[in-house]
Amino acid sequence: MFQVTKTDLAARIGTIQTNHGKVETPAFVPVIHPVRQTIPSRQIRAMGFDLVITNAYITRNSYGERAVTEGIHGIIGHDGAVMTDSGGYQVLEYGDVPVLPKEMAEYERDIMTDFAIPLDKPTGFGLPLATAKSYVKKTLDACRQTMKDSEENGQIWMGPIQGGEHSELVARSTKALVKMGYGMLALGSPVEFMESYEYGLLAEMIIMAKRNIPHDIPLHLFGAGHPLTIPLAVALGCDTFDSASYMLYARQGRYITADGTRRITEITEFPCSCAVCSSHTPAELRDNQDGTNLLAIHNLYAIKLEVDKTRQAIHEGRLWEHVIKKARAHPKLYDIIRVMSQNSGFLSVGTPRFKEKAVFLFGPEDQYRPEAQLYHGMVRRFHTKKTKLILVPESGSKPAYLSRRYAQLGRKKDFAKYQVCEYSPHLGLVPVELSDLFPAAHSVAARTGAGPQEFAEFAKTWGAFFANNSFAEVYYDKKDAFLAHHARSLPRTIKRRQLTLGSEK
Amino acid sequence: MFQVTKTDLAARIGTIQTNHGKVETPAFVPVIHPVRQTIPSRQIRAMGFDLVITNAYITRNSYGERAVTEGIHGIIGHDGAVMTDSGGYQVLEYGDVPVLPKEMAEYERDIMTDFAIPLDKPTGFGLPLATAKSYVKKTLDACRQTMKDSEENGQIWMGPIQGGEHSELVARSTKALVKMGYGMLALGSPVEFMESYEYGLLAEMIIMAKRNIPHDIPLHLFGAGHPLTIPLAVALGCDTFDSASYMLYARQGRYITADGTRRITEITEFPCSCAVCSSHTPAELRDNQDGTNLLAIHNLYAIKLEVDKTRQAIHEGRLWEHVIKKARAHPKLYDIIRVMSQNSGFLSVGTPRFKEKAVFLFGPEDQYRPEAQLYHGMVRRFHTKKTKLILVPESGSKPAYLSRRYAQLGRKKDFAKYQVCEYSPHLGLVPVELSDLFPAAHSVAARTGAGPQEFAEFAKTWGAFFANNSFAEVYYDKKDAFLAHHARSLPRTIKRRQLTLGSEK
Repeated sequence: MFQVTKTDLAARIGTIQTNHGKVETPAFVPVIHPVRQTIPSRQIRAMGFDLVITNAYITRNSYGERAVTEGIHGIIGHDGAVMTDSGGYQVLEYGDVPVLPKEMAEYERDIMTDFAIPLDKPTGFGLPLATAKSYVKKTLDACRQTMKDSEENGQIWMGPIQGGEHSELVARSTKALVKMGYGMLALGSPVEFMESYEYGLLAEMIIMAKRNIPHDIPLHLFGAGHPLTIPLAVALGCDTFDSASYMLYARQGRYITADGTRRITEITEFPCSCAVCSSHTPAELRDNQDGTNLLAIHNLYAIKLEVDKTRQAIHEGRLWEHVIKKARAHPKLYDIIRVMSQNSGFLSVGTPRFKEKAVFLFGPEDQYRPEAQLYHGMVRRFHTKKTKLILVPESGSKPAYLSRRYAQLGRKKDFAKYQVCEYSPHLGLVPVELSDLFPAAHSVAARTGAGPQEFAEFAKTWGAFFANNSFAEVYYDKKDAFLAHHARSLPRTIKRRQLTLGSEK
Repeated sequence: MFQVTKTDLAARIGTIQTNHGKVETPAFVPVIHPVRQTIPSRQIRAMGFDLVITNAYITRNSYGERAVTEGIHGIIGHDGAVMTDSGGYQVLEYGDVPVLPKEMAEYERDIMTDFAIPLDKPTGFGLPLATAKSYVKKTLDACRQTMKDSEENGQIWMGPIQGGEHSELVARSTKALVKMGYGMLALGSPVEFMESYEYGLLAEMIIMAKRNIPHDIPLHLFGAGHPLTIPLAVALGCDTFDSASYMLYARQGRYITADGTRRITEITEFPCSCAVCSSHTPAELRDNQDGTNLLAIHNLYAIKLEVDKTRQAIHEGRLWEHVIKKARAHPKLYDIIRVMSQNSGFLSVGTPRFKEKAVFLFGPEDQYRPEAQLYHGMVRRFHTKKTKLILVPESGSKPAYLSRRYAQLGRKKDFAKYQVCEYSPHLGLVPVELSDLFPAAHSVAARTGAGPQEFAEFAKTWGAFFANNSFAEVYYDKKDAFLAHHARSLPRTIKRRQLTLGSEK
């Protein structure tokens, strides 16, 4: 059902087979209101959205049996794949709804939705642990029954993960749903996290769930329609995500940009070349009778653009760069750099062991990207019998043994007795023997302005490298402030020597 | 002629009046080939480019007197403003051209171009100083004569600044042209800088020229059609910039993205919603007979988008954020962070003294943004007669005197004897008395992961603050690693005390 063709960090590009065609993931899933939709779903499909989400609970109240006869696809006028939420949102917003999970499940089956969600009791955010626990139990009970009653009819049932900020509940809830046999899971992204820009918390919640989900199960994220959330959610392994934000923002006169939303009254130049923006000025859009719908269409284009940019970044193996760059859109979002650095192991899951494009290394945060961590790991296990070590900065020529400096060093007397290492603040030590391995020979590093203290991974590799080997002498340029800083941690038994290149004048 | 309505860093939003309508700046100026143009200039104008550039030398060779009769606007089919280069590019590429500067100037006058450029002798890149000097002299002689011969007919003559990497020549050349009375200047951006991604050098060259140009004179940058160059060039004060890159890249099958160019064969998802990209898949574009033109049209949209995003960033007062974010597109581009940090004073020229939107502070580089520097400057002049100092971290409530912590401190015995300061790694010390000044009360800072060593401006402010005042005691939380680091530099005569909040339990 879910076929993955490409990965980077925890993100995947894949395809989900449904009763109404294929869905390419990662995919944004626009919300279609079953009654009050003002932008025809046909138009939304033409923009490239093959999967939409609508509400089975509202459909049941408004159309009842008619939706069973016409199917949910007929009701909303969409012939691609349809996902239906089942009233959990209404429970969260207004309290319990007057329908049983079993009844909702039967209705979702009968209206032939492609992705069905059992009626759950969302925990949202801010519940005491005991209450949250009881909600999770209620949801899991409903999910167990729904799965038992479900038929093998090509419908995909999605298990709703609950728990909010209680991470142990998120983990427990995830494991239980996987065990019940759900082929897809869905994570409630507490609207409160988004509204208070708590991206760090959101990221930690997603990671907690993902750690407990087998790789062949796709994950949906509820309510993620903010342009800043999308690259992050995809990088952490969310495959689909829905939102009505395009329309909700439009009604408030809010215009989606790559860096967040702006009031349309604040926009002087449209930073967008979509069909709406290239045929209207901001003033024209404000004065247009159909302005809200036009703004909503722009918003959909803007969201789609974020998804497409993220997909292209995965294809290029540049997702880390893409997400870190996004982090500068808001100081609160910057916190995801910390979360990503701390979860480097998790992010390495889908990071290819070799990339065709060079890895770009900028600031200290990049020492934590999975490719750099992989390399640090190899060097920390490196062993040589040599007792003399030469340390030189990274040269432009890669691998290191092709550099002019290495040729120069080669003229040294007894050169074979020296271990030669280049060093890179981001990648650590680069023994010439390992200098052709990815990513040492496949990276381009910026001149970083950050001091040696900022490279903790370098310090760890440095420590391991000297602990695993028996160097008696180290030759390096003592004026090199970066090396001088780290050399201070060397045991006294190792002699520090000024490096002079034999053949140099 | 040039009216500026908004500024940020050294960038300005303005309007240039010409004989063929207004030109809104900053503006990208597409190159129109007078003979071999394949995308009609009418179509280019419809995309929103009111000013185009074409080549008067080629026009003279190909059309001669006909262009005098029809005017350059008739020849290229553009009724907006036209800029003409005069053969300098041909001189640079192929050596001298068989026409005199005086003849070219007369021809440019006769074809009624809106922006005319004297025939110059470009220095390009890599010339020895003596040769570069002789070229500059030749150009200045031609410019002096051209200006003498020019009439007051509404045409705008642009003085070509030469000098390349010889910064003293750039400065001298700029001053001479200003003195001659040129109403607009144009800087040759050595193609070599761009091709080797030497953005740092390019930035330094622009700054050198700009330092010698009065604010009411607009500056054109030649040959800047790369999406990564545009925000940088605008931030440094370039008002217009031309390029044929949209077509040259298209002929090589290169697709412009916000992060640089990609081979069209590498693109799987179009990260763009322009008219071309939203109606074709990458495969369709590759197979299209008219593929090169379509790709060129996308490239124009992509360049325009970069300009529009940059303009919107100026309107929002977020140009610094925008440029720094761009710097992560390529490790070589990252070098501009260093150049911008070192030229904070220059960048403060157009930075408003107050901004309506909060200033976002992320990494250590942001201590150098003009708003932060302005604040550091004020605090370095701050004087109090109090001898007891309380230091606390920045609180969420702004200004500081409205914070809960300040209220708590207020219950301390003899509170009036204490000077209270919040501190921020980016802004330095924030005396409560100055805490409502911009940007102290109008900034949102990220939790930075960088260590105290990375904040050199903080250390300077700290030093000045203690030197200008006579504190005998400093109260702070000694477990605060940031303060503990800086406290080490305090003179021994100042007593360090653990801060305890009187009313706290």
